[in-house]
Amino acid sequence: MIKIGIVGISGYSGLSTLEILLNHPNVRVMYVSANNTRGKLNDIWPRLKSRTKLFCDRYNSEIAIKECDCLFLAVPHTVSMMITPQLIKAGKRVIDLSGDYRLDRVSEFKRWYHSAHQDGRNLKKAVYGLPELYRADIQKAQLIANPGCFPTAAILGLAPVAAMYADQIQSIIIDAKSGVSGAGKKATLGFSYCEVNENFKAYRVLNHQHTPEIDLYLSQLSGTKMTVHFVPHLLPVSRGILETIYVQLSSNISPGKLMTQYKRFYKTEPFVRVMDAGQQVELKNVQNSNYCDISLAFSPDKRLLVITSVIDNLLKGAAGQAVQNMNIMYDIEENTGLK
Amino acid sequence: MIKIGIVGISGYSGLSTLEILLNHPNVRVMYVSANNTRGKLNDIWPRLKSRTKLFCDRYNSEIAIKECDCLFLAVPHTVSMMITPQLIKAGKRVIDLSGDYRLDRVSEFKRWYHSAHQDGRNLKKAVYGLPELYRADIQKAQLIANPGCFPTAAILGLAPVAAMYADQIQSIIIDAKSGVSGAGKKATLGFSYCEVNENFKAYRVLNHQHTPEIDLYLSQLSGTKMTVHFVPHLLPVSRGILETIYVQLSSNISPGKLMTQYKRFYKTEPFVRVMDAGQQVELKNVQNSNYCDISLAFSPDKRLLVITSVIDNLLKGAAGQAVQNMNIMYDIEENTGLK
Amino acid sequence: MIKIGIVGISGYSGLSTLEILLNHPNVRVMYVSANNTRGKLNDIWPRLKSRTKLFCDRYNSEIAIKECDCLFLAVPHTVSMMITPQLIKAGKRVIDLSGDYRLDRVSEFKRWYHSAHQDGRNLKKAVYGLPELYRADIQKAQLIANPGCFPTAAILGLAPVAAMYADQIQSIIIDAKSGVSGAGKKATLGFSYCEVNENFKAYRVLNHQHTPEIDLYLSQLSGTKMTVHFVPHLLPVSRGILETIYVQLSSNISPGKLMTQYKRFYKTEPFVRVMDAGQQVELKNVQNSNYCDISLAFSPDKRLLVITSVIDNLLKGAAGQAVQNMNIMYDIEENTGLK
Amino acid sequence: MIKIGIVGISGYSGLSTLEILLNHPNVRVMYVSANNTRGKLNDIWPRLKSRTKLFCDRYNSEIAIKECDCLFLAVPHTVSMMITPQLIKAGKRVIDLSGDYRLDRVSEFKRWYHSAHQDGRNLKKAVYGLPELYRADIQKAQLIANPGCFPTAAILGLAPVAAMYADQIQSIIIDAKSGVSGAGKKATLGFSYCEVNENFKAYRVLNHQHTPEIDLYLSQLSGTKMTVHFVPHLLPVSRGILETIYVQLSSNISPGKLMTQYKRFYKTEPFVRVMDAGQQVELKNVQNSNYCDISLAFSPDKRLLVITSVIDNLLKGAAGQAVQNMNIMYDIEENTGLK
Repeated sequence: MIKIGIVGISGYSGLSTLEILLNHPNVRVMYVSANNTRGKLNDIWPRLKSRTKLFCDRYNSEIAIKECDCLFLAVPHTVSMMITPQLIKAGKRVIDLSGDYRLDRVSEFKRWYHSAHQDGRNLKKAVYGLPELYRADIQKAQLIANPGCFPTAAILGLAPVAAMYADQIQSIIIDAKSGVSGAGKKATLGFSYCEVNENFKAYRVLNHQHTPEIDLYLSQLSGTKMTVHFVPHLLPVSRGILETIYVQLSSNISPGKLMTQYKRFYKTEPFVRVMDAGQQVELKNVQNSNYCDISLAFSPDKRLLVITSVIDNLLKGAAGQAVQNMNIMYDIEENTGLK
Repeated sequence: MIKIGIVGISGYSGLSTLEILLNHPNVRVMYVSANNTRGKLNDIWPRLKSRTKLFCDRYNSEIAIKECDCLFLAVPHTVSMMITPQLIKAGKRVIDLSGDYRLDRVSEFKRWYHSAHQDGRNLKKAVYGLPELYRADIQKAQLIANPGCFPTAAILGLAPVAAMYADQIQSIIIDAKSGVSGAGKKATLGFSYCEVNENFKAYRVLNHQHTPEIDLYLSQLSGTKMTVHFVPHLLPVSRGILETIYVQLSSNISPGKLMTQYKRFYKTEPFVRVMDAGQQVELKNVQNSNYCDISLAFSPDKRLLVITSVIDNLLKGAAGQAVQNMNIMYDIEENTGLK
Repeated sequence: MIKIGIVGISGYSGLSTLEILLNHPNVRVMYVSANNTRGKLNDIWPRLKSRTKLFCDRYNSEIAIKECDCLFLAVPHTVSMMITPQLIKAGKRVIDLSGDYRLDRVSEFKRWYHSAHQDGRNLKKAVYGLPELYRADIQKAQLIANPGCFPTAAILGLAPVAAMYADQIQSIIIDAKSGVSGAGKKATLGFSYCEVNENFKAYRVLNHQHTPEIDLYLSQLSGTKMTVHFVPHLLPVSRGILETIYVQLSSNISPGKLMTQYKRFYKTEPFVRVMDAGQQVELKNVQNSNYCDISLAFSPDKRLLVITSVIDNLLKGAAGQAVQNMNIMYDIEENTGLK
Repeated sequence: MIKIGIVGISGYSGLSTLEILLNHPNVRVMYVSANNTRGKLNDIWPRLKSRTKLFCDRYNSEIAIKECDCLFLAVPHTVSMMITPQLIKAGKRVIDLSGDYRLDRVSEFKRWYHSAHQDGRNLKKAVYGLPELYRADIQKAQLIANPGCFPTAAILGLAPVAAMYADQIQSIIIDAKSGVSGAGKKATLGFSYCEVNENFKAYRVLNHQHTPEIDLYLSQLSGTKMTVHFVPHLLPVSRGILETIYVQLSSNISPGKLMTQYKRFYKTEPFVRVMDAGQQVELKNVQNSNYCDISLAFSPDKRLLVITSVIDNLLKGAAGQAVQNMNIMYDIEENTGLK
């Protein structure tokens, strides 16, 4: 039994991680903490009543190190990098759900997260936890940077075409729509019910901190520098992300051939499903699951490819993917706990 | 042209009041204020862009008194009673949308609002602004206590039966369901989108501060002491209240006769509609209007009467009723601005 | 491995049953059917893509009998009673999610469902599948009448007080609020998005077909004839039922004592949770689970008891309870597949 | 007083038209009809109770012609072209809210609406009722083709840049998100509450019938053939459309200059509001109003322009624009009834 700790249990990602792990046959959750709440976990999350006897306290690294083999950090960015060095030094495995270890350079982090990075050493060691692209590295990793929710849907949607047709891609526009839980559990006016319900809007237009993460891993994959235009919108649903991705091509591609290539690319993947031609992905088909569904469509001249990609932002976009990474790290069947 | 001021323009009731008055032919809004915001009203509420040039500042009683004839106070309770005495002294008319002047005794206020009342003198002078019951008093009033949203739906739903069958009423249970705007514009976790969406719950069970207000005015109307059991619930919609009211009777009543009595009671009322037998009220029929719709149903033995009553909590439950009161006070046709 | 058939796979209850059983270690789903759809199950429900290879056809009793040990009937009422006799005769175990076998007399069925009952013989044999009250009977049953969603929340909410204080109960009013999936998967104007969203209303006031089911089993439990007043409302959420139950008592009850009695009554139940005093149940705490959560509150004079009871209508109110019943029938641990 | 008829009163656009006109000082609604409903309008739409005494019957051209000066056709496409010829011949003014008279050629209609056009003669006479571009023609028109909801938001969002920078525009992608009322009042499974709520999806990708309408009027405006890529999505809200429009440019444009040009272009328009730099449009700012709000944003290299455009699909996208057109046709102040 792997002994697990979850730091940041009062947020939605922390709760989701716990709910998966409570039913996971190979682990035992030993430790949970949160910064602003202390008490029985049952009282903090009444939905857990009678399902756990865990007690939540402020984070204490000594206890965490003593009690756990592997820690999930479901905390806001800049918090992870304060906690991680000690855990790594103590030989623990760490799966970080924040944005702290996803970019490759401290300068990039500073530019997009507006804070100086405090742990450049581990930033270099961290493995980007997207199993479909980095499974072999994840297996050997001590520190996982669990991908952002937007990048997960974007990179999985684009990977095959980026890998095989990089030189034909002229531009990529990602029009993303995210459910509200993506913003975390917060008492903010902008995320209050009356402001979000029956509303819709774009935000951080061409300026979202997940953009460089998409650029970085698409560029690694394709071997060329790739830059996407990324525009997120706030969708009045609790969970789920749909991205409509417009790829402009310098010459046409055969739709049938690309479909075959997508299906082959993801053939052995347990959590990516490529829809048949003419069928469109929908949020509800992936909610409460770890799947990423992908559809392809083409303009009549085959020069514009429209990819739609959906995930549940709390699962494949956060907790589900984190557990998938843990399964890989510990050589457990990859979909354990995620069926 | 009546010169109007609105205190508390950054909340939903204040905004609703303004939106009605911007299209009201007999008034001119001269002054708006809010405690936590300063700036062009267009910037505070982008939906007002190009519709007003008003500027919002912190409340200043001298300016308010100088510029206005009549003030709407759309502020939290305990704030109104700090502002009102000066305005009353200066001869202004005041329509208070808070709970400060609705109860009849300072002791009751203290018990339910957990604050000492600071203005007992005007508490006595205030007229309860429910036009269907107090129209004559409203006409002559200087200070209006605009009814709470729950009491408006409850009292209008119950008034005819309470007035005519008081001695037969054994118990009254009000199961109320309110949209989220009833809680005001707040950055509170409990009203954040992810907590409210797809959720439903009761709160302040048998312990809500609107209970004594319902008791008080039903008792005045019926001439007997009446006590209701009141249980509110939070409904995942932005606006609207539906109350299901269970009246247990000591002997049966004729449904046909009661229906006739309800229709007669409200025959000349511009904003109360009694549904025909067998037809149930719905929130959507009153949203964005000043109507209160009422349905009646009976158990087979005619000893249980089930009244359903709906209003838009921001209109008949707040701003709409406030303007209706103003129209009455200034002898303007009662539905002006409210069609 | 128990060989399972699901009749009515195109509806929400059928799908929910399948989704539970696909992860259940002791069963294998061999057969699915629907009346209006034919094809790969993956195409009918794209969310099942890559999770099953089942093919759906019109119901054929010979095939069903040949391939299955146990059948779940997730069909509209009046359909079950056409199918059931043959299955019972062939020795199959049947769990019927419709209303066909819940009442005890054909005359009652006729009165509330407006159709003549075609299978009075099995109506007598059927066991009411509420494990908390009828576990021993369920173990030996061949035919289970899986309870209605409203009765499940109502009876579980009331059982302890009805069992222990029957002679003090003067009246019971149930104000129920149900999510839209309770109405099934239908192309009906009244359940279209624009009619339900941001709306709320009561329907079938004091006239819903689940009323006699509640009366029947409360009466059995208490040994006295009990009659409830039941008023359902349509809640703008996809799944979940909350019932606010008002019990008027002839003499007061001690809140502390009743709380203890409730906790003791459900002490060994895996799926009923009694909230602590002062804590209110919420839909979101039971959604996607098989729990029924119950809260208790009292009026100051302890003569009015307010019970709030919540379930997920598709799980504890339908598919989850059906699987719980199957587990009991086959002597499998009761929460298998339902954690 | 202009005598008005509304054909298709049982749908959302017909109802919206009526609700505007009931408060319009210059008109009187004399006649309403619907194909599938007959009865008092109050019974068909309970929200109109006590507001009108109109009676609804099946459409009868003789009565319509006798009683009305001007008719609004709020019917499905292919129905308008059956009704219109007679009305035009009788000298009536017609405002058609369907798609029947929006395209310029019968062949285009056939291609996109999959039906043969039956009234090519009036197709030529019809004026496209987008006041911001065709006000002078509308004034003299007898037959108005009221624009589609998607084209209204698209063309208004693009008009200034299309008019002034046509030769620099390399490609236009419109990612549109529409509330559900855009699909009309229909008992269709795909628009049932449980299918739409908490869901999101693209549909008719690059294949929607509003595409040629956008192309046609942008081309007229710019004097060059323009082709857009149009992808609509279904948004889980009742009303409102937001379009995110990506304009790729062959050389950079000055953001400040373009902003000035947009503001100037719409300076005298009563219903178009251009947001200041950095401010994003939101659905809620235009719901229940006739406004179209527009924001502009640029990529760092100023080669990608991102326009966001919002309207209420039932008002500026249908009934509101129809009344605006009527006001222009009858030389009434343009915002009468629409404030």
